[in-house]
Amino acid sequence: MLQPHHDGSALHVSTLAPALGDVVAVRLRIPVGADAPLEVLVRSCPDREPFFNKAVHLGTAGGHDWWEAEIRVANPVHRYRWLVHYESGLTHWINQEGVHRIETRDDADFALVAHEPPPAWATDAVLYQVFPDRFARSEAADARPTPAWAVAAGWDEPVVGSGPGVSEQYYGGDLAGVEAHLDHLVGLGATVLYLTPVFPGESNHRYNASTFDEVDPLLGGDEALVSLVESAHAKGLKVLGDLTSNHTGDTHAWFLAAQASEDAPERAFYYFHEGGTYASWLGHASLPKLNWNSQELRDRFIEGPDSVVGRWLRPPFSLDGWRIDVANMTGRYEGDDLNAEVRQIIRRTMVEINPDTLLLGESTNDATDDFQGDAWHGAMTYANFTRPVWGWLSVPGSAAFGGLGMARSVIPSYTGVDVHQQHQRFVAGIPWRTRLHNMNALDTHDTPRFATNALPGAVPVALGMAVSMPGIPVVWAGDELGLTGANGEDSRTPMPWDAIDQHQGTIAVHRELLALRAGQPALRGGGMRWLHVGEEVLVWVREAAASSVLCVAARGFYDVVVEEGDVVVDGEPALLWGEGGATAFGAGGLRLTGSGPSFSAWSLPGVAVPVADEAAELAERELLDQNAAQDSALAHGEPAAPTETAAWSKDVHGEG
Amino acid sequence: MLQPHHDGSALHVSTLAPALGDVVAVRLRIPVGADAPLEVLVRSCPDREPFFNKAVHLGTAGGHDWWEAEIRVANPVHRYRWLVHYESGLTHWINQEGVHRIETRDDADFALVAHEPPPAWATDAVLYQVFPDRFARSEAADARPTPAWAVAAGWDEPVVGSGPGVSEQYYGGDLAGVEAHLDHLVGLGATVLYLTPVFPGESNHRYNASTFDEVDPLLGGDEALVSLVESAHAKGLKVLGDLTSNHTGDTHAWFLAAQASEDAPERAFYYFHEGGTYASWLGHASLPKLNWNSQELRDRFIEGPDSVVGRWLRPPFSLDGWRIDVANMTGRYEGDDLNAEVRQIIRRTMVEINPDTLLLGESTNDATDDFQGDAWHGAMTYANFTRPVWGWLSVPGSAAFGGLGMARSVIPSYTGVDVHQQHQRFVAGIPWRTRLHNMNALDTHDTPRFATNALPGAVPVALGMAVSMPGIPVVWAGDELGLTGANGEDSRTPMPWDAIDQHQGTIAVHRELLALRAGQPALRGGGMRWLHVGEEVLVWVREAAASSVLCVAARGFYDVVVEEGDVVVDGEPALLWGEGGATAFGAGGLRLTGSGPSFSAWSLPGVAVPVADEAAELAERELLDQNAAQDSALAHGEPAAPTETAAWSKDVHGEG
Repeated sequence: MLQPHHDGSALHVSTLAPALGDVVAVRLRIPVGADAPLEVLVRSCPDREPFFNKAVHLGTAGGHDWWEAEIRVANPVHRYRWLVHYESGLTHWINQEGVHRIETRDDADFALVAHEPPPAWATDAVLYQVFPDRFARSEAADARPTPAWAVAAGWDEPVVGSGPGVSEQYYGGDLAGVEAHLDHLVGLGATVLYLTPVFPGESNHRYNASTFDEVDPLLGGDEALVSLVESAHAKGLKVLGDLTSNHTGDTHAWFLAAQASEDAPERAFYYFHEGGTYASWLGHASLPKLNWNSQELRDRFIEGPDSVVGRWLRPPFSLDGWRIDVANMTGRYEGDDLNAEVRQIIRRTMVEINPDTLLLGESTNDATDDFQGDAWHGAMTYANFTRPVWGWLSVPGSAAFGGLGMARSVIPSYTGVDVHQQHQRFVAGIPWRTRLHNMNALDTHDTPRFATNALPGAVPVALGMAVSMPGIPVVWAGDELGLTGANGEDSRTPMPWDAIDQHQGTIAVHRELLALRAGQPALRGGGMRWLHVGEEVLVWVREAAASSVLCVAARGFYDVVVEEGDVVVDGEPALLWGEGGATAFGAGGLRLTGSGPSFSAWSLPGVAVPVADEAAELAERELLDQNAAQDSALAHGEPAAPTETAAWSKDVHGEG
Repeated sequence: MLQPHHDGSALHVSTLAPALGDVVAVRLRIPVGADAPLEVLVRSCPDREPFFNKAVHLGTAGGHDWWEAEIRVANPVHRYRWLVHYESGLTHWINQEGVHRIETRDDADFALVAHEPPPAWATDAVLYQVFPDRFARSEAADARPTPAWAVAAGWDEPVVGSGPGVSEQYYGGDLAGVEAHLDHLVGLGATVLYLTPVFPGESNHRYNASTFDEVDPLLGGDEALVSLVESAHAKGLKVLGDLTSNHTGDTHAWFLAAQASEDAPERAFYYFHEGGTYASWLGHASLPKLNWNSQELRDRFIEGPDSVVGRWLRPPFSLDGWRIDVANMTGRYEGDDLNAEVRQIIRRTMVEINPDTLLLGESTNDATDDFQGDAWHGAMTYANFTRPVWGWLSVPGSAAFGGLGMARSVIPSYTGVDVHQQHQRFVAGIPWRTRLHNMNALDTHDTPRFATNALPGAVPVALGMAVSMPGIPVVWAGDELGLTGANGEDSRTPMPWDAIDQHQGTIAVHRELLALRAGQPALRGGGMRWLHVGEEVLVWVREAAASSVLCVAARGFYDVVVEEGDVVVDGEPALLWGEGGATAFGAGGLRLTGSGPSFSAWSLPGVAVPVADEAAELAERELLDQNAAQDSALAHGEPAAPTETAAWSKDVHGEG
């Protein structure tokens, strides 16, 4: 595309974990071309007022001119974008959404985040999602009586996908069953076991907790969790729990106490109306909504090491983090919006116990607002990845969108151009560091399985995208077996362990693509640069200093030229996965050919940031120092130093 | 453009001032065409979770099908957008930015706002901005000695536009001078006198206040303000003051006390660093930044009737509202962000004293975040109107952007398409009710004057846009005389009253265009619908029940067809202002021809919302009732009623 490029990766930003007040170097690459840059500026908004720092020219490498500017991180989320003036008179604004001729909104800027950083292991994570009732039964399960609310089902019986009985159908999977199959996860390449709720609740999904104080005895109780986590840790797997901070079940001890007496301290944990009705999740009376104005609720649930949030992270349970259910609605009701407080307290409690823990929040649609880095490390969201991928790679007109926050159960028909546009739109407002930890799920326990409506041959393409676009790949247990399911309930299929030999083909595809990611650091933390966007094909490169990976996702036939200067090639690139052709020409041109649906990944050389020569560096250093003096004046309230830059700043801002 | 349309005006929304919990009817118009809508839904996000209500078909009128849905206002800012499924399989999302094939971000949704509404008079307001030192001198001014900080200038002397002396050049205009010229404002068509600060400060701009307790004696003191406001009110003019909530001057009594002793209560009003330096506005030591963590500061400045904010709204001063300087930076510093608290307290204090007051906030760039309707009624901002209009109607390459938050003093070259896109982008996130009160300023005391670099003949076009696009038109004193000024300082020209006869031409243009707005309710509170967007011409219609106005702003030659069905015409439309041709054809087609720069406005019939016939209405009523039951279940936490709609809702949302 031969466009200026910046992203939040280590090639372009000197640190991903700055502290407030730190000075961070940021770098912009501009393809060498006819229209030379006259001036490169970085615009940021300390305390929300536009402020410009000049960039210096570092040198040329890989067909790109590299520019560098310094930014003092003035606020916990410090946004910035680039402004380039060219000799021709053209102006380019570059933000996280792309390159623009006209002004852009602040909320699509890049961002430096000075909040507590996510754990280092998160960027390498591959989640494997387990719904305990459906994953595996241990022998102990046979001895457990079916509870009163449940209707027992045999492991091979079909799932009730809708209507009455959905939540009551009980297969009796348990944690010992999960533990027995951990090698399956390890063999696949998963690094994190994500368990949907394990607390008791009168349903198979357990999102209607009746207590947070013990693991459901139907799953084997506390001991089973301790044993599972110990085994998982021994095999190098992390374990993530699942908490509902928006609601409890109506059988929860807190709620029963609250209903029993208006004087109970728990009464304030919920929103009771006149006449005894109460707020609940989407009107489902079984899921009463929590009222986070209550300090007592905060103490019991989220604040401090003895709270629910804290207790399960400590030994002997030692969970490695939480996925929070309905994070988007938490603390929001009528005139109340306590969401930021609640999520920040949750994270603070976690950091107190173990900062090396992960916190993901469910926010099924636009996750931008809440995911600025003050608490959630990433979003379980479907707008930036899942839905556009479905729109592109499903059989047109498939009836399958229920449960994803969409109105109708029809998958809209997307082109590759749409996929690119929607992806960019929904990640543009999310800081890079958070974006790396958004869940790239093809499906979850709340959605149909992707394979159900996928175009023939499209599963490896979608999974290829999941492992190679920024974000954490997710395998929803059973996807690796090629299972299908028409909606979120129907996709909660018991794992057919007895027939697993029949599924070795799809398992191998999953294993290979996860291994591709594991073997290529650039696919995990590397930069993200689009090279071609077409209706039938998307081409991008993940870039790092040591090596880069070129990715081609195709729905149909493609014959694409990546322009000279847009990538660095070193002879014919080596194919890492897939098939198709990549023919090098000239200084960094590539012709990519093949048919779809297909996914291919090619190895490319790493990206070198040029080092300025000494004389140039000295001259430019002066400019950076002036910028820094200006920044420092801003920070400390001293009169701006009487330098040329300060005068220029004054001219920009005026006074009064 | 033959596109579905909705805006926040009375045609499309049953009330602009709902209370929390109210049910509001919202309406969408879809041009009658080959691809019939299968289903029309309104998506909103109570507590941030997507939720869909079905719309009913009201009937057809003016070439449009009208659909209506009801929304229960669940949160103080309740966002919504439309989703239309067509027979062809096409999907349309409609939000405040326009019509989209793919999903959109929540922050460009329409919004219903349940906060305290703006005063009714604000929608009809025309601001006239006066910089007291430069507007007019009364005879009393001659007797006042020049203060020590100032350099006296004769009224006809040129303004020092940059460098030393800018803030010290003192012309000695005063409030009695303003009072003597109120008839000029009334004659022009202004309805609000907006005074930049009148408190003492050691500069001609007075944004560095040394006290907020008295009007500057150099302006005539408190008595002069009382007299001015009384005269203004008698002539039907409102008066707006100007406050700096971000900083004071370093000569302010609070700051002097804070500097004198670390134990002074005022010490906590500012951000002092080690070594005695302190935070200040953009590093200017003369403007120390206020620290809103201090409750004492809040009490003195913004909270309650005896605070600065309150006192000047009460008799005998009786100001009609405030414009707040640097509203965007207020309360923001390093890790602090108290902006929302400060603005909400300011507004609460105002409402206590007189809810019929106006509160505007300066936010020169992207104003979206802070302007959601919880305090500010409108923004003094340059991104949605001023800068795009400048880019389109200025001599290309003009050096004139200093002081507007832009890096370089060059006006970028915009097409009409760019103007449309940038306008939509920067209003899309602002609720309609606030958008109506954003300042449509061609320039202010902080910018060059638009006329300085305008294309020949472009001033009436730009002013025509200011009076006919949603927002409050602003006349910066002297614009009506055709004055020029190369930057914000230079444009603070003393008003050449003696030579006013030479300026009757530009005065007449201003008077006529403001009268056009005054005579056409649709130009003030009417809907906003784009009809044509081209490089050289923009066509839109402001619509209301009684009458509508078609507006044509052209930079060059144009020959544009508004498609049949896009507007309602009743024979040849009557020209209200300007020249050019409008030829009707068929059922609502129009051919518009002319040359530019030019602005034309044409009278069109009002827009009738169809009334459904009784049988249809009964059938549809049922659907609305189901929607309402669903809403109500959501609100009160009862189990959703077992209706078809509830089942559909369940299907959409799933459970667990």
